[in-house]
Amino acid sequence: MTKRQRHQREYIYGLNPVAETLKGKREIARLLVREERRNEQRVAALVDTAQRLRIAVESTDQRRLDSLSDGGNHQGVVLEVGPFQYTDLEQMIQEAVGRPILVLDRIQDPQNLATLVRTAAAVDCAGLVIQTDRSAMITPAVVRSSAGLVEQLHVVRENNTRRTLDTLKESGYWATALELTDESQNLFTADIPEPVALVVGSEGRGVSANVIKACDLVVSLPMPGPVESLNVAVAGSVGLFEILRRRQQRD
Amino acid sequence: MTKRQRHQREYIYGLNPVAETLKGKREIARLLVREERRNEQRVAALVDTAQRLRIAVESTDQRRLDSLSDGGNHQGVVLEVGPFQYTDLEQMIQEAVGRPILVLDRIQDPQNLATLVRTAAAVDCAGLVIQTDRSAMITPAVVRSSAGLVEQLHVVRENNTRRTLDTLKESGYWATALELTDESQNLFTADIPEPVALVVGSEGRGVSANVIKACDLVVSLPMPGPVESLNVAVAGSVGLFEILRRRQQRD
Repeated sequence: MTKRQRHQREYIYGLNPVAETLKGKREIARLLVREERRNEQRVAALVDTAQRLRIAVESTDQRRLDSLSDGGNHQGVVLEVGPFQYTDLEQMIQEAVGRPILVLDRIQDPQNLATLVRTAAAVDCAGLVIQTDRSAMITPAVVRSSAGLVEQLHVVRENNTRRTLDTLKESGYWATALELTDESQNLFTADIPEPVALVVGSEGRGVSANVIKACDLVVSLPMPGPVESLNVAVAGSVGLFEILRRRQQRD
Repeated sequence: MTKRQRHQREYIYGLNPVAETLKGKREIARLLVREERRNEQRVAALVDTAQRLRIAVESTDQRRLDSLSDGGNHQGVVLEVGPFQYTDLEQMIQEAVGRPILVLDRIQDPQNLATLVRTAAAVDCAGLVIQTDRSAMITPAVVRSSAGLVEQLHVVRENNTRRTLDTLKESGYWATALELTDESQNLFTADIPEPVALVVGSEGRGVSANVIKACDLVVSLPMPGPVESLNVAVAGSVGLFEILRRRQQRD
């Protein structure tokens, strides 16, 4: 391993994140385990899995694990890995087989990104597209907050959301913005053709106007109460579950 | 004002929280405004409202506001108020007129509480019930995180969730737990009679078994993807919007 490669190493920590990453697509250098916890059931299961995959397992102490996980709650396990493996758009579309795709128009808060990743995984989305510019990326902290589930999704990085939507539309997807505008239809009653690419926008500004223009339709959550807007991760999650509800109803 | 009363003073800060609290039910001692921002449109509007309500308005400096808001983002306004005004259950039921009620079985994270408050307000819930024991309460930080919307809802404190559910059921409510159990029905296809009291549980343990026993039905979010559970605030929000969807469909 050259020095340059060493700099690209990341450290995934915690039982669920490590388990999901072992099932995922990253290069894995080694599993570091706190000696005293090695016999605990869930830790032992991870060691077994690693050994089956012929990944080196090393015992170490609490202090080293604390340092590698930046003081995060590592639960005695840290996985040394290569960078997150992003997918390209064409590959995601091909493997999606009509499942929904989530497009994030500049989500900046890693916690919101992690929440949306979890919901996307729960409703069986194929994956998500994130902007390379002014957006939260898939850091070890996001892996941790998503309980490692991001390792099971396709994640595409694109620097031009409009172009991404054009590609999705050419592939049969219906680009559906979740945003309150004068033209928004009620999420629950709008005709939303499948397959759906759901577009949600940044925390402050929502989906940008030029991205909305590229969308086939715009929907918003009905809010009869005295509320103007919800957190983007909550609104996006409600949108994703409504798409799931319709898919299940149709089946 | 005696010394004892002075100790019960709370400080609500930020433009939206102060605006909502002025519309709410608390006793208000005075509005503190940063002198330099007094002419800004939204600050001036709050000063106008306060003066119409014959509430004292005092100019002060940044440092004092920083201190009263514990370093929070006060945006130049702090409202000195009496304690949050909880409602009693009978009053909430009476004023609900069939709107949904959210019952929180020991939600401990103030951020989750604030998110659920915002969604409950958005979907026009009558209010919520929180446990007095081992639960997050309506602190100024929760008021802030809910953008002040909690001031527009009925909030009932109860120390026995089963007894609360009995009262709700006697008043015609259908106690509906949102929890994954062997008996859970799919949230989207279950027959959920109205009016609904939706019960959501604590972050770690979910809705407790004895509370589930007191419920008329148990529903859960379908999750075809590789996810075992979602954050309670996300799951609860999806549940509340599904109840809204049905209410709107019926109307």
